[in-house]
Amino acid sequence: MPWDELKPRTFAAFDRELDGISRQTMEEHYKLYEGYAKKANECRRILNELDYAQAEGNQVYSPLRAVSVDYTFALLGYKNHDLYFGHLGGEGGPPRGRFAEVVEAEFHGGLDVWQDSVRKAASAARGWVMVGYDLNDGSIFNYIMDSQNLWAVYNMVPILAIDVYEHAYVRDFGATPDGRKQYVEAFFRNLEWDHVNRQLVQAEAARRGASESGAREPEPAGSPA
Amino acid sequence: MPWDELKPRTFAAFDRELDGISRQTMEEHYKLYEGYAKKANECRRILNELDYAQAEGNQVYSPLRAVSVDYTFALLGYKNHDLYFGHLGGEGGPPRGRFAEVVEAEFHGGLDVWQDSVRKAASAARGWVMVGYDLNDGSIFNYIMDSQNLWAVYNMVPILAIDVYEHAYVRDFGATPDGRKQYVEAFFRNLEWDHVNRQLVQAEAARRGASESGAREPEPAGSPA
Amino acid sequence: MPWDELKPRTFAAFDRELDGISRQTMEEHYKLYEGYAKKANECRRILNELDYAQAEGNQVYSPLRAVSVDYTFALLGYKNHDLYFGHLGGEGGPPRGRFAEVVEAEFHGGLDVWQDSVRKAASAARGWVMVGYDLNDGSIFNYIMDSQNLWAVYNMVPILAIDVYEHAYVRDFGATPDGRKQYVEAFFRNLEWDHVNRQLVQAEAARRGASESGAREPEPAGSPA
Amino acid sequence: MPWDELKPRTFAAFDRELDGISRQTMEEHYKLYEGYAKKANECRRILNELDYAQAEGNQVYSPLRAVSVDYTFALLGYKNHDLYFGHLGGEGGPPRGRFAEVVEAEFHGGLDVWQDSVRKAASAARGWVMVGYDLNDGSIFNYIMDSQNLWAVYNMVPILAIDVYEHAYVRDFGATPDGRKQYVEAFFRNLEWDHVNRQLVQAEAARRGASESGAREPEPAGSPA
Repeated sequence: MPWDELKPRTFAAFDRELDGISRQTMEEHYKLYEGYAKKANECRRILNELDYAQAEGNQVYSPLRAVSVDYTFALLGYKNHDLYFGHLGGEGGPPRGRFAEVVEAEFHGGLDVWQDSVRKAASAARGWVMVGYDLNDGSIFNYIMDSQNLWAVYNMVPILAIDVYEHAYVRDFGATPDGRKQYVEAFFRNLEWDHVNRQLVQAEAARRGASESGAREPEPAGSPA
Repeated sequence: MPWDELKPRTFAAFDRELDGISRQTMEEHYKLYEGYAKKANECRRILNELDYAQAEGNQVYSPLRAVSVDYTFALLGYKNHDLYFGHLGGEGGPPRGRFAEVVEAEFHGGLDVWQDSVRKAASAARGWVMVGYDLNDGSIFNYIMDSQNLWAVYNMVPILAIDVYEHAYVRDFGATPDGRKQYVEAFFRNLEWDHVNRQLVQAEAARRGASESGAREPEPAGSPA
Repeated sequence: MPWDELKPRTFAAFDRELDGISRQTMEEHYKLYEGYAKKANECRRILNELDYAQAEGNQVYSPLRAVSVDYTFALLGYKNHDLYFGHLGGEGGPPRGRFAEVVEAEFHGGLDVWQDSVRKAASAARGWVMVGYDLNDGSIFNYIMDSQNLWAVYNMVPILAIDVYEHAYVRDFGATPDGRKQYVEAFFRNLEWDHVNRQLVQAEAARRGASESGAREPEPAGSPA
Repeated sequence: MPWDELKPRTFAAFDRELDGISRQTMEEHYKLYEGYAKKANECRRILNELDYAQAEGNQVYSPLRAVSVDYTFALLGYKNHDLYFGHLGGEGGPPRGRFAEVVEAEFHGGLDVWQDSVRKAASAARGWVMVGYDLNDGSIFNYIMDSQNLWAVYNMVPILAIDVYEHAYVRDFGATPDGRKQYVEAFFRNLEWDHVNRQLVQAEAARRGASESGAREPEPAGSPA
């Protein structure tokens, strides 16, 4: 599809009271999401309209590289928050549905270990924890991201996104590591697991779709060594 | 699927002479790919075997965060090179097949603009150019990556990967910006467009699969403001 | 000098009421500073005690590289905040003393331009603005830092440090760009210019000291081309 | 001092044959150094000429932030290589002079441990090893840098710079980890220890100068807790 402008959308989470995460935090947070959409659109328009026959391609500094790099910050700022706001407004509780099934069966150590591991990852990240489904091997992993776009990986579909930027918790829980821990528990109390499960179902269907396309590389005869 | 160890595989490109890219460059390059697989496996095993009930989750320094972050460097080091070696060994020529169709119809400016833009991106990147298909909106974009894992995005399927790390071209073309340009032309002379087209067919099928899964968020009634 | 452990110290700013920056923000902020000192010490001890004859040096992943990299995050987390807390507790007002003199005489555009430029930099940074004195050429520049250690430069003495991490302002001013702007004005209302001037006097003395040491490279006769 | 344009200078290393590092590598390498100077000047001029009253300060994307960030890449690209080329053209051998004295007396483990540790750091870095003298505490540390500007620290004077970017060694030693190790040994065989000692003498004089300036913060009476 040709690229089209990102549009901030509405989320059920903004229609209800959340448990521990204040309306003020959510409303300020939404303004950041709008800012990411606006800047992603601005960057992509600049790149679409460049005269590439004339533009300088320089790896030290060139507008082309600068806009391309910060576009990914803006784009993932949008994608990350789109997922995060979609998660909130639920009843929390332990993982259930397809996500619980898959993690119990396939994550190293099962569901109990995952529940510990995702909390430790949320303390160890500087920006986001992104639980992702790898389209190559179908495995699930807790990716630690240090900003909107630091240490993302591709060919991966995000299933569960926890924002641990300070804007997500400082007002309600304080800027300390303990404040963050309390916030992460609040996040899980407000999580809509149906939303997480829909992400996972889409991810599994994407992998199945790719596999059924039959677009597979023929095996080479030789060997590199 | 439970995670399984990455295994370096064989590539047709190693069975033939490439035009301008020496066998020595390719063989040294393959050793780096083996190193990424080995380190990705080492990191993932460390993370699988952590005692998460006891492990420290600290965002300044903790083994958990360090291994998680460098795992993505190793993992994309593997994924990037797996794609890159798969591309080589072809007859080059202008883009053809599904990739040419889609870029002509949907990339801003069409195929001619894309051909200029990808070359400029290859001069402006510090590590890789990754032409990717966005699973959210189905658009194609030239992502500039500054290392194996800097500025990747998720929910994106890679279609065409150009390694512009110096190991890919210094021996054959020299370390200068002009040397890199000559290398990029050699890359295109050796490109197997069928491989690129298979990547794109998989990506489109993945997006269709996700869409047909019906796992879609219900529209919220309210509005955030 | 042999390395010695970093010790969090006390600051005059914590003895008085600041204008617009709450005690709660300051106290939580101080806990982060203590955390940086603790982690810097932990990392440096690990590195001091490594068996370097046996240790693996691997650029993809090795404990050596992981600890070395995050040590700089911890170290600059300490240095940045040490400077920042030292700045606060003053009477604000326009720049005065040596800093005003030097900026008026030497910064491109003079003092008025600098006052605009540092505010714009504070909106454009993701972590810190560090006004630094370059020991090579003696010029003053507003460095934009995206985290505790992203985009620092060496052979530079920091003169004025503005923390624009969200922990510095979200509680008191909100997480939005406008909230940050109000915070930056509050920072300047509480700034002790004497402290800034002492930093600059030290920086100039350091450069003079290096210059008077006479440890200068002899000019080579030839030319590289 | 007002900022002045960086000018690539000449180095004794280009007047003689180096042991193991080819003239072709050195000449291509010098072109990169010229490129860094040119881009540093371009970025600084853009920043000097911005209309800061009107300029957008935006942390997601703004030309101000993009140019400021890549300026540090260009500036350290220049500073790093200026030091590196200054080191080469010597007789190598074990560390001697002031550097040997200070490392033996103050580096944790002494000179033998340092000799192992710097080699392991050179294998573990993705861009540079920068042996630096900290102006705060006078200690010496092997900083690992992943690019021209990733993980630098300020208030530090560089003493010894080892370029481990692939452009420094691929042509002469191959792109593999073993190739890099051979290159690092060649670097030490060509090292002019006098140059390193001059850097250290300057660093110590800078610290003494700052200390003797008497520009010291008065101790606060209170305590933060």
